[in-house]
Amino acid sequence: MYNQQLRGLTFDQQGLIPAIIQDDETKEVLTLAYMNKESLNKTLDTGETWFFSRTRQELWHKGETSGNRQLVKEIRFDCDADSLLVKVKSLGPACHTGENSCFYNTLEARNTPEEMGLNELAALISERRHETKED
Amino acid sequence: MYNQQLRGLTFDQQGLIPAIIQDDETKEVLTLAYMNKESLNKTLDTGETWFFSRTRQELWHKGETSGNRQLVKEIRFDCDADSLLVKVKSLGPACHTGENSCFYNTLEARNTPEEMGLNELAALISERRHETKED
Repeated sequence: MYNQQLRGLTFDQQGLIPAIIQDDETKEVLTLAYMNKESLNKTLDTGETWFFSRTRQELWHKGETSGNRQLVKEIRFDCDADSLLVKVKSLGPACHTGENSCFYNTLEARNTPEEMGLNELAALISERRHETKED
Repeated sequence: MYNQQLRGLTFDQQGLIPAIIQDDETKEVLTLAYMNKESLNKTLDTGETWFFSRTRQELWHKGETSGNRQLVKEIRFDCDADSLLVKVKSLGPACHTGENSCFYNTLEARNTPEEMGLNELAALISERRHETKED
Protein backbone atom coordinates (compact mmCIF):
# COMPACT_ATOMS: atom_id res chain seq x y z
CA MET A 1 0.00 0.00 0.00
CA TYR A 2 2.94 2.38 0.54
CA ASN A 3 4.90 1.79 -2.65
CA GLN A 4 2.51 4.10 -4.47
CA GLN A 5 3.33 6.90 -2.03
CA LEU A 6 7.07 6.30 -2.16
CA ARG A 7 7.25 6.21 -5.95
CA GLY A 8 7.23 10.01 -6.17
CA LEU A 9 10.10 10.49 -3.72
CA THR A 10 13.67 11.07 -4.85
CA PHE A 11 16.34 9.01 -3.11
CA ASP A 12 19.98 9.98 -3.67
CA GLN A 13 22.70 7.90 -5.33
CA GLN A 14 23.18 5.94 -2.11
CA GLY A 15 19.44 5.24 -2.03
CA LEU A 16 18.91 7.62 0.89
CA ILE A 17 16.61 10.54 1.68
CA PRO A 18 17.31 12.96 4.55
CA ALA A 19 14.66 13.05 7.27
CA ILE A 20 14.31 16.00 9.64
CA ILE A 21 12.89 14.76 12.94
CA GLN A 22 10.79 17.37 14.76
CA ASP A 23 8.97 17.15 18.09
CA ASP A 24 5.31 17.40 17.16
CA GLU A 25 4.39 19.33 20.31
CA THR A 26 7.33 21.61 21.14
CA LYS A 27 8.35 21.99 17.45
CA GLU A 28 12.00 21.49 18.49
CA VAL A 29 14.12 20.04 15.71
CA LEU A 30 15.63 16.88 17.19
CA THR A 31 17.78 15.18 14.57
CA LEU A 32 18.68 14.99 10.91
CA ALA A 33 18.88 11.31 9.94
CA TYR A 34 18.67 9.31 6.73
CA MET A 35 16.18 6.72 5.49
CA ASN A 36 16.33 4.27 2.62
CA LYS A 37 13.16 2.79 1.14
CA GLU A 38 13.22 -0.15 3.53
CA SER A 39 13.54 1.99 6.65
CA LEU A 40 10.86 4.38 5.39
CA ASN A 41 8.53 1.43 4.80
CA LYS A 42 9.27 0.12 8.28
CA THR A 43 8.59 3.60 9.66
CA LEU A 44 5.24 3.68 7.88
CA ASP A 45 4.38 0.10 8.88
CA THR A 46 5.28 0.40 12.56
CA GLY A 47 4.54 4.06 13.24
CA GLU A 48 7.99 4.42 14.82
CA THR A 49 11.15 5.86 13.25
CA TRP A 50 13.58 3.54 11.48
CA PHE A 51 16.71 4.98 9.87
CA PHE A 52 19.64 3.82 7.78
CA SER A 53 23.01 4.29 9.46
CA ARG A 54 25.53 5.57 6.94
CA THR A 55 28.47 4.64 9.18
CA ARG A 56 27.28 1.13 10.08
CA GLN A 57 25.50 0.63 6.73
CA GLU A 58 22.50 -0.96 8.39
CA LEU A 59 18.94 -0.25 9.43
CA TRP A 60 18.36 0.95 12.94
CA HIS A 61 15.19 1.28 14.92
CA LYS A 62 15.51 4.49 16.90
CA GLY A 63 15.33 3.77 20.62
CA GLU A 64 15.48 0.00 20.29
CA THR A 65 18.19 -0.26 22.94
CA SER A 66 17.71 3.05 24.80
CA GLY A 67 13.93 2.88 24.87
CA ASN A 68 13.82 6.42 23.49
CA ARG A 69 11.58 5.47 20.59
CA GLN A 70 9.86 8.05 18.43
CA LEU A 71 6.15 7.67 17.63
CA VAL A 72 5.38 9.09 14.20
CA LYS A 73 2.55 11.63 14.10
CA GLU A 74 2.95 12.85 10.55
CA ILE A 75 5.36 12.63 7.62
CA ARG A 76 5.72 15.46 5.12
CA PHE A 77 7.92 15.79 2.06
CA ASP A 78 9.22 18.94 0.42
CA CYS A 79 8.49 20.61 -2.92
CA ASP A 80 11.36 18.71 -4.59
CA ALA A 81 10.26 15.43 -2.94
CA ASP A 82 13.88 14.83 -1.91
CA SER A 83 13.66 15.38 1.84
CA LEU A 84 11.27 14.41 4.64
CA LEU A 85 9.95 16.14 7.72
CA VAL A 86 8.89 13.56 10.32
CA LYS A 87 6.87 14.89 13.26
CA VAL A 88 7.14 12.65 16.29
CA LYS A 89 6.29 12.18 19.92
CA SER A 90 9.61 11.20 21.46
CA LEU A 91 9.66 8.79 24.40
CA GLY A 92 13.01 10.18 25.60
CA PRO A 93 15.99 12.28 24.51
CA ALA A 94 16.64 12.08 20.77
CA CYS A 95 20.42 12.38 20.99
CA HIS A 96 22.75 9.55 21.99
CA THR A 97 24.55 12.06 24.26
CA GLY A 98 21.44 12.37 26.42
CA GLU A 99 20.61 15.84 25.08
CA ASN A 100 17.01 16.31 24.03
CA SER A 101 18.05 17.46 20.56
CA CYS A 102 21.18 16.65 18.56
CA PHE A 103 21.46 20.38 17.77
CA TYR A 104 22.79 21.51 21.14
CA ASN A 105 25.90 23.26 19.79
CA THR A 106 25.75 26.88 18.73
CA LEU A 107 27.94 27.93 15.81
CA GLU A 108 26.87 31.52 15.82
CA ALA A 109 24.29 33.53 17.67
CA ARG A 110 23.92 36.60 15.57
CA ASN A 111 22.75 39.84 17.07
CA THR A 112 21.44 42.76 15.09
CA PRO A 113 23.07 46.09 15.94
CA GLU A 114 19.82 47.07 17.72
CA GLU A 115 20.19 44.13 20.07
CA MET A 116 23.83 44.74 20.88
CA GLY A 117 25.13 46.66 23.81
CA LEU A 118 27.41 49.60 23.00
CA ASN A 119 30.53 47.73 24.07
CA GLU A 120 29.70 44.76 21.87
CA LEU A 121 28.95 47.01 18.92
CA ALA A 122 32.21 48.92 19.39
CA ALA A 123 34.09 45.61 19.51
CA LEU A 124 32.46 44.46 16.28
CA ILE A 125 33.30 47.71 14.49
CA SER A 126 36.90 47.49 15.67
CA GLU A 127 37.09 43.85 14.55
CA ARG A 128 35.70 44.63 11.09
CA ARG A 129 38.06 47.59 10.68
CA HIS A 130 40.93 45.27 11.57
CA GLU A 131 39.74 42.70 9.03
CA THR A 132 39.54 45.34 6.31
CA LYS A 133 43.13 46.39 6.95
CA GLU A 134 44.26 42.82 6.43
CA ASP A 135 42.76 42.62 2.94
CA MET B 1 37.45 34.93 11.99
CA TYR B 2 35.02 32.17 10.96
CA ASN B 3 37.44 29.57 9.63
CA GLN B 4 38.15 28.49 13.18
CA GLN B 5 34.46 27.76 13.73
CA LEU B 6 34.06 25.92 10.44
CA ARG B 7 37.10 23.71 10.93
CA GLY B 8 35.18 21.30 13.16
CA LEU B 9 32.30 20.81 10.71
CA THR B 10 32.10 17.82 8.38
CA PHE B 11 31.27 18.57 4.76
CA ASP B 12 30.37 15.63 2.50
CA GLN B 13 32.27 14.40 -0.56
CA GLN B 14 30.67 17.15 -2.64
CA GLY B 15 31.82 19.71 -0.07
CA LEU B 16 28.28 20.26 1.20
CA ILE B 17 26.53 20.25 4.56
CA PRO B 18 22.72 20.04 4.88
CA ALA B 19 21.08 23.04 6.56
CA ILE B 20 17.62 22.83 8.11
CA ILE B 21 15.98 26.24 7.95
CA GLN B 22 13.54 26.91 10.78
CA ASP B 23 11.39 29.97 11.52
CA ASP B 24 12.81 31.32 14.77
CA GLU B 25 9.42 32.48 16.04
CA THR B 26 6.85 29.95 14.84
CA LYS B 27 9.36 27.03 14.90
CA GLU B 28 8.00 25.88 11.53
CA VAL B 29 10.57 23.99 9.47
CA LEU B 30 10.80 25.89 6.20
CA THR B 31 13.37 24.20 3.97
CA LEU B 32 16.21 21.72 3.81
CA ALA B 33 18.98 23.26 1.72
CA TYR B 34 22.72 22.73 1.31
CA MET B 35 25.70 24.96 2.04
CA ASN B 36 29.32 24.70 1.03
CA LYS B 37 32.05 26.51 2.98
CA GLU B 38 31.75 29.60 0.80
CA SER B 39 27.99 29.93 1.24
CA LEU B 40 28.27 29.29 4.97
CA ASN B 41 30.92 32.00 5.24
CA LYS B 42 28.68 34.37 3.29
CA THR B 43 25.78 33.47 5.58
CA LEU B 44 27.92 34.27 8.61
CA ASP B 45 29.29 37.45 7.06
CA THR B 46 26.00 38.89 5.86
CA GLY B 47 23.57 37.51 8.44
CA GLU B 48 21.35 36.26 5.61
CA THR B 49 21.10 32.74 4.18
CA TRP B 50 23.27 31.74 1.22
CA PHE B 51 23.06 28.23 -0.18
CA PHE B 52 24.73 26.07 -2.80
CA SER B 53 22.38 24.87 -5.52
CA ARG B 54 23.13 21.25 -6.37
CA THR B 55 21.21 21.45 -9.66
CA ARG B 56 22.70 24.74 -10.86
CA GLN B 57 26.05 24.11 -9.12
CA GLU B 58 26.28 27.70 -7.93
CA LEU B 59 25.83 29.85 -4.86
CA TRP B 60 22.47 31.47 -4.35
CA HIS B 61 21.43 34.19 -1.98
CA LYS B 62 17.98 33.20 -0.75
CA GLY B 63 15.44 35.88 -1.67
CA GLU B 64 17.79 37.87 -3.89
CA THR B 65 15.20 38.04 -6.70
CA SER B 66 11.98 37.40 -4.75
CA GLY B 67 12.86 39.64 -1.83
CA ASN B 68 12.01 36.78 0.54
CA ARG B 69 15.36 36.95 2.28
CA GLN B 70 16.03 35.11 5.54
CA LEU B 71 17.69 36.94 8.43
CA VAL B 72 19.80 34.57 10.48
CA LYS B 73 19.09 34.58 14.20
CA GLU B 74 21.15 31.57 15.23
CA ILE B 75 23.10 28.68 13.71
CA ARG B 76 23.43 25.36 15.48
CA PHE B 77 25.21 22.17 14.47
CA ASP B 78 24.48 18.62 15.52
CA CYS B 79 26.37 16.11 17.65
CA ASP B 80 28.13 14.69 14.57
CA ALA B 81 28.88 18.20 13.26
CA ASP B 82 27.60 17.14 9.85
CA SER B 83 24.34 19.09 9.67
CA LEU B 84 23.20 22.61 10.52
CA LEU B 85 20.05 24.09 12.02
CA VAL B 86 19.64 27.70 10.92
CA LYS B 87 17.00 29.71 12.77
CA VAL B 88 15.76 32.64 10.73
CA LYS B 89 13.33 35.49 10.50
CA SER B 90 11.90 35.10 7.01
CA LEU B 91 10.88 38.21 5.04
CA GLY B 92 8.40 36.17 2.96
CA PRO B 93 7.44 32.63 1.96
CA ALA B 94 10.40 30.24 1.99
CA CYS B 95 9.22 28.08 -0.90
CA HIS B 96 9.48 29.06 -4.57
CA THR B 97 5.86 27.85 -4.96
CA GLY B 98 4.65 30.64 -2.69
CA GLU B 99 3.97 28.25 0.20
CA ASN B 100 5.35 29.38 3.54
CA SER B 101 7.26 26.12 3.98
CA CYS B 102 8.61 23.71 1.37
CA PHE B 103 7.10 20.86 3.43
CA TYR B 104 3.47 21.39 2.41
CA ASN B 105 2.89 17.81 1.18
CA THR B 106 1.75 15.11 3.57
CA LEU B 107 3.02 11.59 2.96
CA GLU B 108 1.21 9.99 5.84
CA ALA B 109 -0.76 11.25 8.79
CA ARG B 110 -0.67 8.33 11.16
CA ASN B 111 -3.34 7.83 13.75
CA THR B 112 -3.01 5.59 16.75
CA PRO B 113 -5.88 3.13 17.23
CA GLU B 114 -7.05 5.29 20.18
CA GLU B 115 -7.44 8.28 17.86
CA MET B 116 -9.32 6.39 15.17
CA GLY B 117 -13.06 6.17 14.81
CA LEU B 118 -14.51 2.66 14.78
CA ASN B 119 -15.15 2.74 11.03
CA GLU B 120 -11.57 3.80 10.30
CA LEU B 121 -10.20 1.12 12.60
CA ALA B 122 -12.38 -1.56 10.99
CA ALA B 123 -11.16 -0.44 7.55
CA LEU B 124 -7.54 -0.66 8.66
CA ILE B 125 -8.02 -4.16 10.08
CA SER B 126 -9.72 -5.27 6.87
CA GLU B 127 -6.93 -3.75 4.79
CA ARG B 128 -4.21 -5.46 6.83
CA ARG B 129 -6.03 -8.80 6.64
CA HIS B 130 -6.19 -8.37 2.88
CA GLU B 131 -2.47 -7.57 2.72
CA THR B 132 -1.63 -10.69 4.71
CA LYS B 133 -3.59 -12.86 2.27
CA GLU B 134 -1.56 -11.51 -0.60
CA ASP B 135 1.76 -12.55 0.91
